[in-house]
Amino acid sequence: MHERKNEVVAKIYPKGMHQCIADGLSEDKTLDVRTATLEQPYHGLTTAVLKGTDVLLWWGHAAHGQVTDVVADAVVRRVWEGMGLIALHSAHYSKVFKRRMSTSCSLTWREAGEKERLWVCNPGHPIAHGLDRYFEIPNTEMYGEPFAVPMPDEIIFISWFEGGEVFRSGCTWKRGNEKIFYFRPGHEAYPIYFHPTVQKVLKNAVHWAAPEGQRWVDSCPNVPINKACEPLVAKGPSIHKAGEEGFK
Amino acid sequence: MHERKNEVVAKIYPKGMHQCIADGLSEDKTLDVRTATLEQPYHGLTTAVLKGTDVLLWWGHAAHGQVTDVVADAVVRRVWEGMGLIALHSAHYSKVFKRRMSTSCSLTWREAGEKERLWVCNPGHPIAHGLDRYFEIPNTEMYGEPFAVPMPDEIIFISWFEGGEVFRSGCTWKRGNEKIFYFRPGHEAYPIYFHPTVQKVLKNAVHWAAPEGQRWVDSCPNVPINKACEPLVAKGPSIHKAGEEGFK
Amino acid sequence: MHERKNEVVAKIYPKGMHQCIADGLSEDKTLDVRTATLEQPYHGLTTAVLKGTDVLLWWGHAAHGQVTDVVADAVVRRVWEGMGLIALHSAHYSKVFKRRMSTSCSLTWREAGEKERLWVCNPGHPIAHGLDRYFEIPNTEMYGEPFAVPMPDEIIFISWFEGGEVFRSGCTWKRGNEKIFYFRPGHEAYPIYFHPTVQKVLKNAVHWAAPEGQRWVDSCPNVPINKACEPLVAKGPSIHKAGEEGFK
Amino acid sequence: MHERKNEVVAKIYPKGMHQCIADGLSEDKTLDVRTATLEQPYHGLTTAVLKGTDVLLWWGHAAHGQVTDVVADAVVRRVWEGMGLIALHSAHYSKVFKRRMSTSCSLTWREAGEKERLWVCNPGHPIAHGLDRYFEIPNTEMYGEPFAVPMPDEIIFISWFEGGEVFRSGCTWKRGNEKIFYFRPGHEAYPIYFHPTVQKVLKNAVHWAAPEGQRWVDSCPNVPINKACEPLVAKGPSIHKAGEEGFK
Repeated sequence: MHERKNEVVAKIYPKGMHQCIADGLSEDKTLDVRTATLEQPYHGLTTAVLKGTDVLLWWGHAAHGQVTDVVADAVVRRVWEGMGLIALHSAHYSKVFKRRMSTSCSLTWREAGEKERLWVCNPGHPIAHGLDRYFEIPNTEMYGEPFAVPMPDEIIFISWFEGGEVFRSGCTWKRGNEKIFYFRPGHEAYPIYFHPTVQKVLKNAVHWAAPEGQRWVDSCPNVPINKACEPLVAKGPSIHKAGEEGFK
Repeated sequence: MHERKNEVVAKIYPKGMHQCIADGLSEDKTLDVRTATLEQPYHGLTTAVLKGTDVLLWWGHAAHGQVTDVVADAVVRRVWEGMGLIALHSAHYSKVFKRRMSTSCSLTWREAGEKERLWVCNPGHPIAHGLDRYFEIPNTEMYGEPFAVPMPDEIIFISWFEGGEVFRSGCTWKRGNEKIFYFRPGHEAYPIYFHPTVQKVLKNAVHWAAPEGQRWVDSCPNVPINKACEPLVAKGPSIHKAGEEGFK
Repeated sequence: MHERKNEVVAKIYPKGMHQCIADGLSEDKTLDVRTATLEQPYHGLTTAVLKGTDVLLWWGHAAHGQVTDVVADAVVRRVWEGMGLIALHSAHYSKVFKRRMSTSCSLTWREAGEKERLWVCNPGHPIAHGLDRYFEIPNTEMYGEPFAVPMPDEIIFISWFEGGEVFRSGCTWKRGNEKIFYFRPGHEAYPIYFHPTVQKVLKNAVHWAAPEGQRWVDSCPNVPINKACEPLVAKGPSIHKAGEEGFK
Repeated sequence: MHERKNEVVAKIYPKGMHQCIADGLSEDKTLDVRTATLEQPYHGLTTAVLKGTDVLLWWGHAAHGQVTDVVADAVVRRVWEGMGLIALHSAHYSKVFKRRMSTSCSLTWREAGEKERLWVCNPGHPIAHGLDRYFEIPNTEMYGEPFAVPMPDEIIFISWFEGGEVFRSGCTWKRGNEKIFYFRPGHEAYPIYFHPTVQKVLKNAVHWAAPEGQRWVDSCPNVPINKACEPLVAKGPSIHKAGEEGFK
């Protein structure tokens, strides 16, 4: 949205941020890259599209509230099934990321175009593949700790800011079939998605977040007594009737 | 609810399950125990009550859907602030627990009054204080793996069931200020909350879940340029206006 | 060793357990499988062999103490660099596994040929790929909780034993570049490595444990003052002389 | 050692660093504080002393190699039993900390007397109790990422350094009964242990690391067939003789 409403952003991203991100990913010929935007029906994320998506990158800022609950819920269900999720910058406050974290996802921030240096904390991690010990972004919006998320499984990057703050800028979470990567850089006021190392991280992250297991659609099945693994005779009283669904 | 509508449950818990749980906890004279039930205004969980509560035990089954979103959200906010949460048995499908886990929380189940043996996996943990290597519940409803929750921080108990299943029956999660304990036993068709070891676990769990830190009300504050820790001069364009709130 | 000294084991594994495991893995034509045994020089694990190994499966029982510290240390260094490690059954007490866990790795046990049922706790995990909800081993040695290891990152399998115990039988740990999988089944008194599902799990596990990132040889480098990222002038006294190594 | 051999350190810590740390802790009248130093028999850490110790703070630098394996092993055993361990600054390379982490524990470093700012990442954590959003140390030795330790359970502090680096400066790990806190500040060339916030953190950390559960001395017991929880008849061959200890 901001590229169409704000001149600064329109100048930096004439084709839109989503297209810049897609162009960077498309350099990797093993990837089949598509885009979806807010104003499309279902924000471009129909059941069929989600079904055919292995990894979803999510950028949002000014219009988090305009994302419908229907679409947010559908995305969450596909993440549970195994679709990788990469949340970018201000997506820390997106419906999808907040529903996955289940915490407030708050942080501190400042927009001063200051310098950011991202240190690699986990040089052996596939998301850091081919990177040096650190990389710098000359102008960026600052995000500072505390970042109110569940403790990540892995921290790939920690940022140093010119103004004196620090931030856990590259974090992964795995839960069952679900793989999530949060990557901090990406403010729309600066040409961050043209930065070659940022593009490299996104390519690495897409490969890391690709599904590895089978799609798992969970449920809450009753196991009837005569289907128990070990011979079993019913004892005592019961609340549920035979064949009944559980309470949800 | 079930104690008033179902004769079996009414006979086992004539004063209600909540009162049985409260009576068990009250044996510990260091605890100040109160109850709250669904039919009270705000289910008995007003802002003032929550503010004065250190640890909340949550049991629910047939009426998860009747808990209002307003109360569920208020409970979640207090959990973020540091109020301990103990989710009991069928509370795996309660609004509050599902919002904290952010996964489907599904499992398999069978109501056959079978035997359950809970093994202590972490004998040094305060929740297992004073317990033997295992304890048994003669009649129980079975819950089986897979239990669709984020990987717990600690697993205190794993259950063995007569019918052949297993289950992670005592799990803890910490996130920032938040402490959660899930404890599997507790089906209303059997007198499980009268079991002395179950009562002991609940007492231990309440002490474990008690707040340790300061109440933390998080926010998303802007740090103005002239308040940066290091001297800073604004560079490049900006999207946000001075003093503006971030987008949520 | 046991296949050559014990008639029972010799009959079950005439070519040795290592060969049976290798034969099972070799069915996957994408894998290049080799074996190494205790009596070889450096137990078959020379620097060159380790350098050329992506994933190491470790089985040991009667002769843990005969593994030299030199080889154990060399294996640990390669694991840090990114070589996957799969520890099998009684390898819970191997030098290599104990050095990676840094805990006592104790458990309870019983050799009664009883039935074991392994439940899949994480159906979406690549190690569980293609498996049903559970699989059974008709005769096995029992291992029981508490299993004294650091809390795993993921629990893939939990075992139910005929004699009444439970055990976390499939566990993963990641640390930086290191990936470890512990898999419980494998007692030498029974033909467990001929079990088709056990063979499938090992194939899945080898793919899971394969290196994903760059080999990372860590060190403890001094960053001289004139090489600091930000301009820096030395202040205050110092203990270390210029160019000095740190104390180890 | 450095206070007696190095004039700079002797001037800052005339009574020794250990005494300065002890004096700071002793302000908390609920604590009973004692010291132990390298040159004492068993470095002052006899079995009786360790048995009577709830929390051990470890500082070491120039003489890590002079700590005997006997004492290091005894300390590790007490940590497994539940004695809290607080590792300070250069203790990242101490025998005790390296044995608990089981990784290389390397980092980058620079001694330039530069400024360090420690951000609180987890404001609700008891170790951060009573602290502001950050605190500063005017002159410090820099430690930089990557810090080669297993991913901490919780990150309490992240440091920003004047020279451009970042570091996870306050980390906790729990494993069964064991509680460990690593705290980065503490170079002997600067009066860091006189800093009031550093003293406050150490007091908080001692309370956090205090044992909560029962002392757990683990073992690897055989459960004889006739003592199984469920009726069991031996089947198939066996390797172990009745009453035998397992192989270690």
